[in-house]
Amino acid sequence: MVRTPTPEDRFSFGLWTVGWLARDQFGEATRDPLDPWEYATRLADLGAWGVTFHDDDVVPFGTDDDEREKILSRLKQATDDAGLVVEMVTTNLFGHPVFKDGGFTSNDRSVRRFALRKVLRNVDLAARMGASTFVMWGGREGSEYDGAKDVHAALDRYREGVDTVAAYIKEQGYGLRIGLEPKPNEPRGDILLPTVGHALGFIAQLEHGDIVGLNPETGHEQMAGLNYTHGLAQALWSGKLFHIDLNGQRSIKYDQDLVFGHGDLLSAFFTVDLLENGFPGGGPRYDGPRHFDYKPSRTENDQGVWDSAKANMDMYLMLAEKAKAYRADPRVQEAFEASGVLELARPTLGEGESVADLLADRSAFEDFDADAAGAREYRFVHLNQLALEHLIG
Amino acid sequence: MVRTPTPEDRFSFGLWTVGWLARDQFGEATRDPLDPWEYATRLADLGAWGVTFHDDDVVPFGTDDDEREKILSRLKQATDDAGLVVEMVTTNLFGHPVFKDGGFTSNDRSVRRFALRKVLRNVDLAARMGASTFVMWGGREGSEYDGAKDVHAALDRYREGVDTVAAYIKEQGYGLRIGLEPKPNEPRGDILLPTVGHALGFIAQLEHGDIVGLNPETGHEQMAGLNYTHGLAQALWSGKLFHIDLNGQRSIKYDQDLVFGHGDLLSAFFTVDLLENGFPGGGPRYDGPRHFDYKPSRTENDQGVWDSAKANMDMYLMLAEKAKAYRADPRVQEAFEASGVLELARPTLGEGESVADLLADRSAFEDFDADAAGAREYRFVHLNQLALEHLIG
Amino acid sequence: MVRTPTPEDRFSFGLWTVGWLARDQFGEATRDPLDPWEYATRLADLGAWGVTFHDDDVVPFGTDDDEREKILSRLKQATDDAGLVVEMVTTNLFGHPVFKDGGFTSNDRSVRRFALRKVLRNVDLAARMGASTFVMWGGREGSEYDGAKDVHAALDRYREGVDTVAAYIKEQGYGLRIGLEPKPNEPRGDILLPTVGHALGFIAQLEHGDIVGLNPETGHEQMAGLNYTHGLAQALWSGKLFHIDLNGQRSIKYDQDLVFGHGDLLSAFFTVDLLENGFPGGGPRYDGPRHFDYKPSRTENDQGVWDSAKANMDMYLMLAEKAKAYRADPRVQEAFEASGVLELARPTLGEGESVADLLADRSAFEDFDADAAGAREYRFVHLNQLALEHLIG
Amino acid sequence: MVRTPTPEDRFSFGLWTVGWLARDQFGEATRDPLDPWEYATRLADLGAWGVTFHDDDVVPFGTDDDEREKILSRLKQATDDAGLVVEMVTTNLFGHPVFKDGGFTSNDRSVRRFALRKVLRNVDLAARMGASTFVMWGGREGSEYDGAKDVHAALDRYREGVDTVAAYIKEQGYGLRIGLEPKPNEPRGDILLPTVGHALGFIAQLEHGDIVGLNPETGHEQMAGLNYTHGLAQALWSGKLFHIDLNGQRSIKYDQDLVFGHGDLLSAFFTVDLLENGFPGGGPRYDGPRHFDYKPSRTENDQGVWDSAKANMDMYLMLAEKAKAYRADPRVQEAFEASGVLELARPTLGEGESVADLLADRSAFEDFDADAAGAREYRFVHLNQLALEHLIG
Repeated sequence: MVRTPTPEDRFSFGLWTVGWLARDQFGEATRDPLDPWEYATRLADLGAWGVTFHDDDVVPFGTDDDEREKILSRLKQATDDAGLVVEMVTTNLFGHPVFKDGGFTSNDRSVRRFALRKVLRNVDLAARMGASTFVMWGGREGSEYDGAKDVHAALDRYREGVDTVAAYIKEQGYGLRIGLEPKPNEPRGDILLPTVGHALGFIAQLEHGDIVGLNPETGHEQMAGLNYTHGLAQALWSGKLFHIDLNGQRSIKYDQDLVFGHGDLLSAFFTVDLLENGFPGGGPRYDGPRHFDYKPSRTENDQGVWDSAKANMDMYLMLAEKAKAYRADPRVQEAFEASGVLELARPTLGEGESVADLLADRSAFEDFDADAAGAREYRFVHLNQLALEHLIG
Repeated sequence: MVRTPTPEDRFSFGLWTVGWLARDQFGEATRDPLDPWEYATRLADLGAWGVTFHDDDVVPFGTDDDEREKILSRLKQATDDAGLVVEMVTTNLFGHPVFKDGGFTSNDRSVRRFALRKVLRNVDLAARMGASTFVMWGGREGSEYDGAKDVHAALDRYREGVDTVAAYIKEQGYGLRIGLEPKPNEPRGDILLPTVGHALGFIAQLEHGDIVGLNPETGHEQMAGLNYTHGLAQALWSGKLFHIDLNGQRSIKYDQDLVFGHGDLLSAFFTVDLLENGFPGGGPRYDGPRHFDYKPSRTENDQGVWDSAKANMDMYLMLAEKAKAYRADPRVQEAFEASGVLELARPTLGEGESVADLLADRSAFEDFDADAAGAREYRFVHLNQLALEHLIG
Repeated sequence: MVRTPTPEDRFSFGLWTVGWLARDQFGEATRDPLDPWEYATRLADLGAWGVTFHDDDVVPFGTDDDEREKILSRLKQATDDAGLVVEMVTTNLFGHPVFKDGGFTSNDRSVRRFALRKVLRNVDLAARMGASTFVMWGGREGSEYDGAKDVHAALDRYREGVDTVAAYIKEQGYGLRIGLEPKPNEPRGDILLPTVGHALGFIAQLEHGDIVGLNPETGHEQMAGLNYTHGLAQALWSGKLFHIDLNGQRSIKYDQDLVFGHGDLLSAFFTVDLLENGFPGGGPRYDGPRHFDYKPSRTENDQGVWDSAKANMDMYLMLAEKAKAYRADPRVQEAFEASGVLELARPTLGEGESVADLLADRSAFEDFDADAAGAREYRFVHLNQLALEHLIG
Repeated sequence: MVRTPTPEDRFSFGLWTVGWLARDQFGEATRDPLDPWEYATRLADLGAWGVTFHDDDVVPFGTDDDEREKILSRLKQATDDAGLVVEMVTTNLFGHPVFKDGGFTSNDRSVRRFALRKVLRNVDLAARMGASTFVMWGGREGSEYDGAKDVHAALDRYREGVDTVAAYIKEQGYGLRIGLEPKPNEPRGDILLPTVGHALGFIAQLEHGDIVGLNPETGHEQMAGLNYTHGLAQALWSGKLFHIDLNGQRSIKYDQDLVFGHGDLLSAFFTVDLLENGFPGGGPRYDGPRHFDYKPSRTENDQGVWDSAKANMDMYLMLAEKAKAYRADPRVQEAFEASGVLELARPTLGEGESVADLLADRSAFEDFDADAAGAREYRFVHLNQLALEHLIG
C-alpha cells in the first residue's frame, strides 16, 4: 500500500471539501454536517499537514461577533492541537443571494462595497490564523448575457478591489500573498478571468501585482479544454504560481471536483512530475502546499468521505514516486536528448549574437536544408510511451 | 438587400481565405487556384478595403529571389490598381515539415533560427507593402505529449523570438505593431498561448511588449468555450487589441472558420456592438480593420467562394445596423439603468475614500441589509430579450 | 411587439421552471416560493396553454395521503379555472438522497423497487390529470466511475423498469405515451442514454417500445456538441418524437437552461423551422406541445421570472414568423433546387431498379465523370445567408 | 518490457494508420510513402495478426482494372506470406471532391449512385480478401448548415444505401457483417449518426439490420464528451458490437487519433477491462479483433511510425494484464459486493412477481425507509481507487 503522508509532503485540504454535504444542483444533501474542527482533526489523522477554509465554512454568514469569536477560537485550538497549519484562507463571495451578480464586479455598488468589506475582514482573519496565501475565486464575477455586463468597467472594478485588498495587506504588514483562481464558467455563463492566462494578463495591470499571483485548479483549466500542466508552467514562468488546487475532471463538462488523478490520469502524472521534478531544463520550482480542492462524490457517506480524502494523497504519492523513477531512468534522459527536449533551453541566438549577425549567417537561412530538418525524427511517441511504462508498468 | 461596403467600413480579408483550395484533413482540394492578384482584385470588386497574406500565400516556399521579386511587384501593382491596402502581413511557420515541432519553440535550434530568419525577412516585406500590423499565429508552437516540451524553455524561446522581431521593427523604424493570435489546439494537441489571456500574460513579460498586442480570432476563443467578446474586452482594457480575425464557429470542435455570424449569432451581435459602439460606460475603442479569417466551405466552388466573402461583409453590416438601433433605443438605455449596467463604471470607493474610511462606513457592512440587496431585480433577461428583439425583430 | 400567445400555439411550461428558486451548486435560493397553482395561473395569464410537473414539484416528498389529495385537488381546480391543460407529468427520481445512485438502475435493489413504485403511482396521477405524455428523465441513472456500474446490468434494469411502466399504462388503459429524455452528464459524470440516439437504440430493445418515444431537450444535446435539430429529425424519422423541451445553451458546459433562443440562435431558428414547416421534402411532422424547460436566471426576482417565461414564447413566435417567410421566399425555393436539397428525397435507385440493374448501369460508375461532379457548386453558403437575412434582416 | 504480441492477441491495424503521410489541415506531408505491402509486412514483424484498408489506400482512385488487379495480387501475396489476415475492408467515400457533400446522402443523386457502386465493388473485394467485417464510416454524410440538408430524406437515403449493400452481401452469400462507425463532426460540421447511440437507433430501422452493427472508435465518442466504454457496453447489450477502433483522444477537440492509452488512460483501462473480462455480472462478450485506428504524430518519421504502432499493442497488453489482476483481487470482489455492483444483475421484480404484487408490497414503498436507504455507503471512490492502485501500483 501507499505510505502514510508526513508534514513534509505538505498536503492540505479545504474544509469545504470533506465538509461538502453533497447537495447539488438537482438534489438534496446526502450527508450530515460535522463541526469544522472535526473535519480538521480527521484530516490530520490521515496525514494532512494543513487546512484551508472560506470564512462561511467556519462561521456561518450572519453570525454575531461573540459567536464568531467562540467558533474561531475553537477551530484554532483544534488545529493547533492537531499540529495543522491553516495555510490559506479564502472568502465566500458566491453563496449568499447578495452576490448573485458578483462581489467586486456586481452591477450594484452597495454589493461591491459589502464584498470588499467582507474580504478585508477575512484578510484580518487569514493573518490571525497564520495563513500565507489568501485565495480569491470570483465564481460569481461574470454574466450570462453579454449586454448585462460592461466588461471594461467590470475589469476596472475587479482591479480596484484586488488592489485595495493588496494595499491593505501591505499596509498591515501581513505576510499574505493573494492567489487568484480562474474558472471559465459555472455558476455564471462566462466568468471573468476564465483561465490562468487571463488572470496573468490581469495581474500585469495591477498596482500591487507583486503580491498577487495564481491558484490554478486542475479541473477549472480542463473545463476549457486546456492543459493544466501548461497552465502551471506559464504561471511559474511568470513568477506567479503561488498556490495550487489539485483535483480531477473528465473532459469538458460541469465542474466535477473528483479526487486528484481520478480524472485525466496521464495529465496528473505530468502535473506531479512538474511539481516534484521541475522543468527538464531547470527554472523556477513550486514549493507551496499540495492543496486538494475536490468533492467526495454524492454517493459517499462518512466512510467514503475519508476514503476519498486519503485517495487524493495516495494518488499524489504514487505519482510522485513514478515521476521520480521516470526522470531517473537513463532511457528517458536519452530520449530527452534525442527528442531535443533539453536543446530547447539553449537560446536561439548565440551568446552575444546580434540580429545583424543572425541575418548574416547563411547557414541559418540561405544554405539551410529545410527538407532535411523537416525529416528529423523527434520520436515524441517513444518518449511518451516511456512515461506510460513508468506510470503503469 | 445589404448596401455595398465602402473603404470606410475597412473590411479586409486574408488572401488565404478565398484562396483556400478546400483540401482538408480527410480530402483533396475541390477548387482550382487563382493567382494572388486575382483574389485581391475580386475582393476589391466586392467592396473590400484591404487584403492580408502569409508570405507563402503569395510566394511559394523555396521560390528564388528573382521570381519572388516578380510576384511581389505584380501583387503590389494589382493592389494599388484596385485601391486595396495591404494592412497586415503574417508568416507561415506551419506548412512546411521543417516546422512540424514549431518555429520559435521547435526543440531543434536550427529550426528556430530558420524560423526567426523567415519572420525577419517577412517583416521587411510587411513594411515594404505598407502594412501596419504583423500577425504571429504560432499554430505549431505546442505539443501533443507533456513530456516532449519543456514549457518553461519554450516560453523563454517564444519571448526571445518575439522580442528579437519587435526590436528589429523598432531598429528599422518600421511602423509595424505585432499581433499575437492565440489558439487552444489544432494542429497541435495543446498550443502555447492558447487564449487571449495567455497571450496578454506573455506580453507582460516581454522587453518590447509596447508594440506587441493581440489579434484574437472568434472561433479560436470559442474552441475553448470562451466568450469572444469578453476576450476582446480584456484585450481592449489592457490596451492590446491591435487587430481582429472575425469568423464563425459552432461549439467546441475542430476549427470551422465559417462566415462571420454563421456560427454563434448572438455572440456575433455583441461583438459588433462592442466594435461599433464601444463599452456602455465608455473606455477604449477598437478602430482597426474588420478583418475576416474564414474558409469558404469545401462544398463551394468559384461562385460559393465569392458568395461567402460577400456574406461576411453583409453579416457585419447588418449586425452593425442592428447594434446601432439597439443602443439608441430608449428602452435599452432604461434597461441598462435598471440592470445597473452603467452603475458599474462608478468606482467602489468614493472619490478620496481610503480603506480606513470604508472600514468605518457601517452602512457598507454592519448595517448593510444583505437580504434586501440579494432580492434586487436585475432583469438581465429582459435586457437580453430587448437585444434579441433588435437582432431579429 | 410580439403578439400574445393563444391556446392554438400550444405553449406549455414545467411548473419547476418558473418555480425554480434559484438555489444552485454554489449558492442559496434567491427567490421565495409560490404555491404551484399560483405559478400555473400566472403562466395562463401570459398565454400558456399547458403546464407540466414532477410529482414532487406539487406534492413534497413524504407528504401524507390526505394532504396530497388536498394539494392535487387545489391544483386541478386552479388549472381548470385557468383553462390550462396538464399535458405532461414526470417523476422526480433525482432529488432525494435515496436516488443518489439512480432510480431504475441504482445498484441497490430496494431503491429500484421504491423508484418503480414512485413512478407507477405517478402514472396514475398523470392519467388522472389528463396528461398525454409521461416523461422519464433518468438524470441519476449513471456513474462517475466506470468500475462502479455494470452497464449491461444497468440497461437490463432500465429496460425492465420502462417496460414495466409501459405495460402498466396499457393494462390500465391510460392514454399515455412515455417520453425518454436523454442527457449526457450532470448531475452524474456519465448518464445512461446520453443522447437522442442512445435512447432510440434503447427503445428498439423494449417489449413495449410502441408507446415509448423521446422528449429531447435543446441544451442536453448541445452539451454533447450535437445538433439539436438533427436529433429531432432522427427522432421524427424513427416515429419517436413524442414531446420536446425547448431552452437555450451556450456551447459545451454545465446545463444552462436559458430561455429558448437565448443560446444558439441560428440553431433555434432551424429548430422552429422544422417544427413549424416540416422537412423540405415532406415526411412526419411534430404536432405536440411547444414545451419550455428552462430556468429563470438566478439574478432575476419575481419580475424577471415572468419576463423570462414570456421571452420563451416571444422568441418562438418571432422565429416561427421568420421561418414561414423563409420557406415562402422564392429565392429560398430556388436555392433549395440549386443546392440539391429537394433532390435528396428522390431514391438513389430508380423505381423498380435492382442492384443488378445498378451494377449494369455504366453511367453510374464506369462512365461517370467524378471530377465534373466534384466541381459542382452546391452554394450552401448562399442558402444559409438567405436564412440569416430572413432571421435578422 | 512488454511481451511480443501473438496472433492470439488478434491485433490489427488499418494500413492508412502507419501509412498516413502526416499531411494535415495546416501542413504538408512529413513522411515518404511506402507500398501497401511494405506497411503490412512491417506490421506483421511487430506481431500484428491482421490488417485492414480502404479501397483507395491500396488502389489509388481512378486506377485502371489491370493495374488494380496487379496491386491486389501483390498485396494478397504479401499478407499471405506474412501470415496476416485481412480482417476488415472499408470504402473511402470522403477523399475525392465528388464526395464533398457525402456519398450515400449527397444532395446529388448521381453521386449517391456512384458511391453505392464504389461500395458494392469494394464489398466484392472484401469478400475476396477473406474479410469478415465491412466498415462504413460516413464522414462526409452531414452538413455545416441546417438548411442545406433535409435530414429526413438523408436518413431515408442512408437506409436505402446500407440496406442495398446488406442485401447484396446476403445475396452473394458473403460472410460479411457491416460495421457502422459513428463520429460527431469533422470533416463536416455535423455528421449524421454522430454517436454509437444514433447508429443503434438507425440500425433498428433497417430491413437487413441483422448483419449491420457497430464499429465504435474511442476518440469519436470522446469528441462528444461521451464515455467510450459505456458506448461499447450499449452496443454489446444490443448485440451489435461487431468491430472496434481503438485509439487515443484528449478531451473535446479535433480528432487526434493518438496511440491507444495515450489519451484518457483511465478510460482505456476500463475499455480493456470490458473487452478482456466482460461485464462484472456476465453477459455478451466481444471476441473480435483488437483493431487500432490511430495516426503516428506528424513529428515522427519512419522510426516513430513503428514506435507508435508497437506502442498501441504494448499499451493494450499492459492494460490487459492490469485488468486481469484487478478483477482477480479479492479486495475488488469485496468492493463490488459492498458497492452493489453485482446486485444490479438481479431483476427489480422478483421471479414471477407481477406489477400487482409489487404494488401490494408495502415494504417497497409505504414502509420503505427512504432516508435510511439514502444514507447507504456505496464507497464508489474506494472501488475506483482500487482500480487505480492496480493500474499504476
